[in-house]
Amino acid sequence: MYVILIYDVAEKRVGKMLKQCRQYLCWIQNSVFEGELSEVKLRELQHKIENLIDKKEDSVIIFSNKMGYHMSKDILGKERMSTDNFL
Amino acid sequence: MYVILIYDVAEKRVGKMLKQCRQYLCWIQNSVFEGELSEVKLRELQHKIENLIDKKEDSVIIFSNKMGYHMSKDILGKERMSTDNFL
Repeated sequence: MYVILIYDVAEKRVGKMLKQCRQYLCWIQNSVFEGELSEVKLRELQHKIENLIDKKEDSVIIFSNKMGYHMSKDILGKERMSTDNFL
Repeated sequence: MYVILIYDVAEKRVGKMLKQCRQYLCWIQNSVFEGELSEVKLRELQHKIENLIDKKEDSVIIFSNKMGYHMSKDILGKERMSTDNFL
């Protein structure tokens, strides 16, 4: 299914989140990922994220579409974040 | 059409962005908005955002689906940001 994931986590967990999400999805920009995942893989990723985040501090939004309909994407402003901040 | 908007702007422009986006879309969490907009309204919002952001510093991603297919939404961790930071 088609997935868009957006995370908002404390700085100390950004590196781990990024690494984790990159194993499953394509990094679009900053804390936004997109990709195609099976239901099993999505559950696996959700489980890993739940183990990684602090549920009182962090939040992760996962949009998914079982029908696989993709969305068009427009980026206004800076095309892509520099990778300097990433591990 | 169905729209998901994610912004990443310098702190000094967050208040204006939030106010602008709220006039068109539903605020889901932090810098993420979702909603249904006509093509005309979406272009209007894009135009306003382009006038508001610093294109060298900020970036805004707009996902849209003309067919109007909505996406399921799961939130892991903190359900909703506090409104303390918002104008």
